[in-house]
Amino acid sequence: MTVEFWFLIGAALVFWMQAGFAMVEAGFTRAKNAGNIIMKNLMDFCIGTVVFALLGYTIMMGEDTLFGLIGIPNMDLFTHFKAFIASPGNGDFTAASTFVFNLVFCATTATIVSGAMAERTKFSAYCIYSGVISLFIYPIEAHWIWGGGWLSQLGFHDYAGSCAIHMVGGIAALVGAAILGPRLGKYERDENGRVIKVNAFPGHNIVIGALGVFILWLGWYGFNGAAATTPSELASIFLTTTIAPAVATCVTMAFTWIKNGKPDVSMCLNASLAGLVGVTAGCDAFDAIGASVVGVVSGILVVVVVEALDMKLHIDDPVGAVGVHMANGIWGTIAVGLLANPDAPAGLSGLLYTGDFRQLGLQVLGFGSVGIYAAIMMVITFVIIKKTIGLRATAEEEIMGLDITEHGLPSAYAGFAATSEDYSVYGEDVAVVAGDIPVAEAVEVKSVPSFNNTVIARSTTNVSGDVAIPQNQEAVTFTKIEIICKEARFEKLKRAMAQLGITGMTVTHVMGYGSQKGKPEYYRGVLVDTNLLPKIQVEMVVSAIPVRDVIEAAKKALYTGHIGDGKIFVYNVDNVVKVRTGEEGYAALQDIE
Amino acid sequence: MTVEFWFLIGAALVFWMQAGFAMVEAGFTRAKNAGNIIMKNLMDFCIGTVVFALLGYTIMMGEDTLFGLIGIPNMDLFTHFKAFIASPGNGDFTAASTFVFNLVFCATTATIVSGAMAERTKFSAYCIYSGVISLFIYPIEAHWIWGGGWLSQLGFHDYAGSCAIHMVGGIAALVGAAILGPRLGKYERDENGRVIKVNAFPGHNIVIGALGVFILWLGWYGFNGAAATTPSELASIFLTTTIAPAVATCVTMAFTWIKNGKPDVSMCLNASLAGLVGVTAGCDAFDAIGASVVGVVSGILVVVVVEALDMKLHIDDPVGAVGVHMANGIWGTIAVGLLANPDAPAGLSGLLYTGDFRQLGLQVLGFGSVGIYAAIMMVITFVIIKKTIGLRATAEEEIMGLDITEHGLPSAYAGFAATSEDYSVYGEDVAVVAGDIPVAEAVEVKSVPSFNNTVIARSTTNVSGDVAIPQNQEAVTFTKIEIICKEARFEKLKRAMAQLGITGMTVTHVMGYGSQKGKPEYYRGVLVDTNLLPKIQVEMVVSAIPVRDVIEAAKKALYTGHIGDGKIFVYNVDNVVKVRTGEEGYAALQDIE
Amino acid sequence: MTVEFWFLIGAALVFWMQAGFAMVEAGFTRAKNAGNIIMKNLMDFCIGTVVFALLGYTIMMGEDTLFGLIGIPNMDLFTHFKAFIASPGNGDFTAASTFVFNLVFCATTATIVSGAMAERTKFSAYCIYSGVISLFIYPIEAHWIWGGGWLSQLGFHDYAGSCAIHMVGGIAALVGAAILGPRLGKYERDENGRVIKVNAFPGHNIVIGALGVFILWLGWYGFNGAAATTPSELASIFLTTTIAPAVATCVTMAFTWIKNGKPDVSMCLNASLAGLVGVTAGCDAFDAIGASVVGVVSGILVVVVVEALDMKLHIDDPVGAVGVHMANGIWGTIAVGLLANPDAPAGLSGLLYTGDFRQLGLQVLGFGSVGIYAAIMMVITFVIIKKTIGLRATAEEEIMGLDITEHGLPSAYAGFAATSEDYSVYGEDVAVVAGDIPVAEAVEVKSVPSFNNTVIARSTTNVSGDVAIPQNQEAVTFTKIEIICKEARFEKLKRAMAQLGITGMTVTHVMGYGSQKGKPEYYRGVLVDTNLLPKIQVEMVVSAIPVRDVIEAAKKALYTGHIGDGKIFVYNVDNVVKVRTGEEGYAALQDIE
Repeated sequence: MTVEFWFLIGAALVFWMQAGFAMVEAGFTRAKNAGNIIMKNLMDFCIGTVVFALLGYTIMMGEDTLFGLIGIPNMDLFTHFKAFIASPGNGDFTAASTFVFNLVFCATTATIVSGAMAERTKFSAYCIYSGVISLFIYPIEAHWIWGGGWLSQLGFHDYAGSCAIHMVGGIAALVGAAILGPRLGKYERDENGRVIKVNAFPGHNIVIGALGVFILWLGWYGFNGAAATTPSELASIFLTTTIAPAVATCVTMAFTWIKNGKPDVSMCLNASLAGLVGVTAGCDAFDAIGASVVGVVSGILVVVVVEALDMKLHIDDPVGAVGVHMANGIWGTIAVGLLANPDAPAGLSGLLYTGDFRQLGLQVLGFGSVGIYAAIMMVITFVIIKKTIGLRATAEEEIMGLDITEHGLPSAYAGFAATSEDYSVYGEDVAVVAGDIPVAEAVEVKSVPSFNNTVIARSTTNVSGDVAIPQNQEAVTFTKIEIICKEARFEKLKRAMAQLGITGMTVTHVMGYGSQKGKPEYYRGVLVDTNLLPKIQVEMVVSAIPVRDVIEAAKKALYTGHIGDGKIFVYNVDNVVKVRTGEEGYAALQDIE
Repeated sequence: MTVEFWFLIGAALVFWMQAGFAMVEAGFTRAKNAGNIIMKNLMDFCIGTVVFALLGYTIMMGEDTLFGLIGIPNMDLFTHFKAFIASPGNGDFTAASTFVFNLVFCATTATIVSGAMAERTKFSAYCIYSGVISLFIYPIEAHWIWGGGWLSQLGFHDYAGSCAIHMVGGIAALVGAAILGPRLGKYERDENGRVIKVNAFPGHNIVIGALGVFILWLGWYGFNGAAATTPSELASIFLTTTIAPAVATCVTMAFTWIKNGKPDVSMCLNASLAGLVGVTAGCDAFDAIGASVVGVVSGILVVVVVEALDMKLHIDDPVGAVGVHMANGIWGTIAVGLLANPDAPAGLSGLLYTGDFRQLGLQVLGFGSVGIYAAIMMVITFVIIKKTIGLRATAEEEIMGLDITEHGLPSAYAGFAATSEDYSVYGEDVAVVAGDIPVAEAVEVKSVPSFNNTVIARSTTNVSGDVAIPQNQEAVTFTKIEIICKEARFEKLKRAMAQLGITGMTVTHVMGYGSQKGKPEYYRGVLVDTNLLPKIQVEMVVSAIPVRDVIEAAKKALYTGHIGDGKIFVYNVDNVVKVRTGEEGYAALQDIE
Repeated sequence: MTVEFWFLIGAALVFWMQAGFAMVEAGFTRAKNAGNIIMKNLMDFCIGTVVFALLGYTIMMGEDTLFGLIGIPNMDLFTHFKAFIASPGNGDFTAASTFVFNLVFCATTATIVSGAMAERTKFSAYCIYSGVISLFIYPIEAHWIWGGGWLSQLGFHDYAGSCAIHMVGGIAALVGAAILGPRLGKYERDENGRVIKVNAFPGHNIVIGALGVFILWLGWYGFNGAAATTPSELASIFLTTTIAPAVATCVTMAFTWIKNGKPDVSMCLNASLAGLVGVTAGCDAFDAIGASVVGVVSGILVVVVVEALDMKLHIDDPVGAVGVHMANGIWGTIAVGLLANPDAPAGLSGLLYTGDFRQLGLQVLGFGSVGIYAAIMMVITFVIIKKTIGLRATAEEEIMGLDITEHGLPSAYAGFAATSEDYSVYGEDVAVVAGDIPVAEAVEVKSVPSFNNTVIARSTTNVSGDVAIPQNQEAVTFTKIEIICKEARFEKLKRAMAQLGITGMTVTHVMGYGSQKGKPEYYRGVLVDTNLLPKIQVEMVVSAIPVRDVIEAAKKALYTGHIGDGKIFVYNVDNVVKVRTGEEGYAALQDIE
């Protein structure tokens, strides 16, 4: 049994990382896009396989030409199969093994992007992107680093791809997210376009996201270790690949604990990946101390970059792909130049161990040139896509979710009820709304509501028998207003009600059955009934605030002119009791405190 | 380190496919049966292990007898352990390795069936089925193909089991699903029994289903590759095992996109598996082009078969097991005869490469004889089970879900609310209902409702002060009818209300607390409180439609005579506003457009 | 390729078990703590890695001293990296491999505990515990068994850690759970502190729990097999490692089926793990019969211990860690002395095969001494933590869930609605409540309710036109009382309403919007809006029971004096119909049957 068996087992572990990316990205985003995210992760591997087989592989691993810039393409895989599977590829391995090995690495690069562009990218645009990156963008720079190209000739060291894979994937993620723009409602802006509020869109399944991280970590033993050919090299790689993420995660736990007062779960999960990315380039070149230092830096870097991107640059990266892969990909590449220990298997001379700047210079040259190349190529790619077929889903598609609009999947979680917590969804006019209602005043309460609704003494106040008449009220009525509306309009309704001085509402997720049917959708070829549509039911009881004002404000907030705008029902209420104070009637409704 | 280490690592990867099947099947079915599906997948492996150890293994791998039909059983595993673990099994491997390897393959065959028979099979019946298939049905045909039996002697080629495993599992799935009948409500029939509507029952967790597919794909590198003994053989297998599913998935994406207008997520997930099944028999015999062709056919075949089974044959296979495993198992077996490239490791002569029909003939003979054998054995098995202990859960059990009825598990997702989207559940009288209400007219709206409820001018119309009196109405009342009922009766209630002309309802998932207690159930030995039972609350507001008619129709739809039939509450409503049109009062309730 | 490659692949599989533990523990507990459980499983590995590298590893594997009690610590990993990765570790493997291998085993020991202490342990306390066990508690006893210490010198056999890992982890779990005390509401006690009711807290995701079991089972092939160096040894280990859990699961299925009437899903999942734990010590020493016997005992033992712990000892172990790991760890250790077959690779002499008591004596000595050591160390550890920083979260934190209180994560499942089934949560006064209302009478219904609410004939009874006047009632009113309250108070409210004779309530999970805002929480550094808080809406309709009594009882049950105690609304109801009996009005509300 030759070491090529391990090489292929390692490749299978790298394939397994596709599942990890799918779970992390699905878990860290919202449920309404989960099917779309799965689909993107599945398809980038499948499309990538096709185009990498057709062209990418030989651009990467073919005979070097143009002074180390590119490999010469050939079709041997399809036309000379016997020679292909027997011919040598990487080192002592056959070309067939080398193909599979490089394919799964290529697919990793492509899939990093899907997380950063999640929840708002047109599916067709994503398919084209994933074809383009695997067809030649990745293969060219991978040729430079691993295919015998100019960087490998110079001695640039990127053992398993901090630069070739993660930095490039991370740059593509950054470029894509920036060109695409943020998810609707992520950043609220004033009339000058200045961001006045950053909203958090919590992921819908942290458990699945965590599973994804564990999958990625397991796969990383293959990712970093597959090319090792001696036991001590592999053992050393396993050691550094364990220490760096463990240290990074501990550091992030401490860092978020100190900074925010509590250890942040999803940031720690990111940190494990950050440490893994950081150690990748030099997993065979670091010692235990080097791996620890890599981890310390990665653990802080990921938090700082994720937050700076969101809070300062306002680039919306739902899963932290830029912070994890780009930032730590760069860090890991440089770290080889700083922390490589000549005693480690790679035998490289890091600056801090030897005082020698040569390797560091090469590392900077490498990440700089590859980074510039990747950035230019990705800008061109995404701009062309944007100008031709379009890069972004429409606002309506985004609000409804890409599962239903892109794939006809009413929900990735059929049978589960959603809550109204997910109403970080806004209509197309969110900027206007934010402009209309300066946020600081949005919940201002009218302290002296005018009594312009007709107050009628009604016998019904006697229904409940022993209801005490509020002290300083002759006779008041309490009216319940029940509004059934679209989920996407809830945020606007909430603001309108707050403006009127409504201080309490009960919000329920309901299903509306009615003549308003959804578009026909197919699940596995079968038409899906969609005459039960998710709606929001908002209930409020008012007394001093005129019912008519509430109705008109609600109508204004909910009106779109399309079927399904909703209905408003008005009921009489016999009494109201506030538990904490024991107040009844009018007083019980005054929540100003 | 001998190649036997890889053989066993590969076996572990095949074991891992059990998790993949469990996740795919759970994810693609409804939440109320998730625990049952998990249990079936767990138990078929465990029961299968016991019976395969007792008898199955030696029937399969024992000394050939009866002209290649069967191996001679022995108990060496239990009685001569030292000899057993040292003796040779498959090729150069020890018997102990060979036992583990064949056991996990056997379990794969058994578990394919659980998906097709999901959501309605009696658990005890499934246990018996899984014992029988692993005890001798699978071992006998596996002996023919891999145990030195007649097909292997002739030169039939099924490297990793397109025929022996997947086709046989798929046939068992088809036979089982057909004898069992469809899930309640899956097909609506007219009075002549003709299907007039096919309902989609979306899976409850597409993310978990996708994870299952990734698990299976990873496991497949072991499934197809475990028996490889040289690096170039293994590399070639990894290559074909990657290309075929990737191509199949791309083809299915394009095919469903063109056919239904959108790329179908769950079908693409099926397609990856279809490509893997298709390439399994010839994973060592195809070149890259052959694997691609296998993928193209698999990607179309799976869609066509899944839809034909559902839409034409009306055989209910919730997860697509027949389309994936049977159809592609047959295709993969034939494909060896067509597409085997003599340059590939197996060195076989496919018709399209060599013009030689011999291998194709053998492949047809193989799948035909094994298929007929499997079909006969499975019909006998399932008919006997049906006639004795019964194959199917009762209608009530099915509607309530098998988790609670078979395992006493109130929910596999305690603490999560379910929606009323899951009401593709019907009572025992669904056929009658469908007969009573021809579907085309089911939502017909009575356009001139008779005003036979007493219209009374009430002072309460003044409660909300400034309510405009509807234009052409002297004085009308609006009445809210609130119905609390069993989830299983919602579909019937909905139809009854539609017949009355009710065009809008609000449906909420609630919990009913009351004297109606559930049966005692145990979770980990502890009695579970069940005095909060899931109920549906349906609210509607009527004006022209007589309240009494609604009450009587609801009573008729909900009455079963058992505790928990529900209650109906009647309230007065003061006003109604329709947001889109601004209409109020009576006009706001008229949704005919 | 040397066997060291397999040794490291096996170590990666053991790492993968971390994911399995995380999924099992998350799935078997409640959703509100899922993020916390994930975090604990992630951090115990990461913290464990750091401290094991710093000290633990050399205490375990360093040069033996003090007559086999401990290894001599050194810092070679950090100071002599070249020597470290080249020097020999276990057997023929390098120290670097040996380090990684022992690290993942150490982390397994630590992580067993998190399940037993789930849902109520302070996160900081857990971090300290996990550092301490990996720093020296585990390394010392592992030195005895595997590091050349006194037990290994005597011939004690624990091949892969039934004793060193699982029993020790299980003892830590037992000690931790006992010192910590049960989750709130788990055991209801009378005024003397006697437990009068044991409540089941069903896990929130059985599918993820099952996935965890499959992950663990897969990982176990590495756990038991990684150290094997010959094919027949590894094959034999795979064989026993498959048979024992399969048999255990079948036995548990049968056992729970007979005992409780239904096969229990979560117990069968535990049983697979129990069988794996049981076979671990002797996986190389048992034959197929021995492995089967181990499985039979494990399958019964796990059920008996889990239930005894819960029902008799009232120690709350949410995931069954004590039953699985401690009980079966002990059993597996003893089983080597009973069932070791000299023909198996280990060549040991079990009592039942040879009549030789020597090995059995050694096994008893081993588990006894290690068990006493572990118990003492864990008691000291947890008592010190309890006395210093505190071991347990506050009652309020526990009721709200540790995700939000420990990590600022509002929900691990953003966007999913929770049901009121999860109200096995009690306030600080649960004991008092249980004392006030003897459970047997808690739902006693007042059979002759006094009519002390004013009965008024109202014209509104005519609203619904044709409502029949109840036979023996002159004129009655029906009043709907709607209560919006905190989730944590629902249980108390339910009891208070039952005491009043309320026999029917409708309970809905709603979101309350209001001036009562939650504390600021950060998700990935971004402030999370929390002005929509989960609330419970309880609706009931009364006639004979005085509305005022209901209001007063509700106020008493809900009052805490803090913002958010809730509101009570009173409405008039026009009519009530009971579907099953056709009764209307007053009679329809009388649910006494």
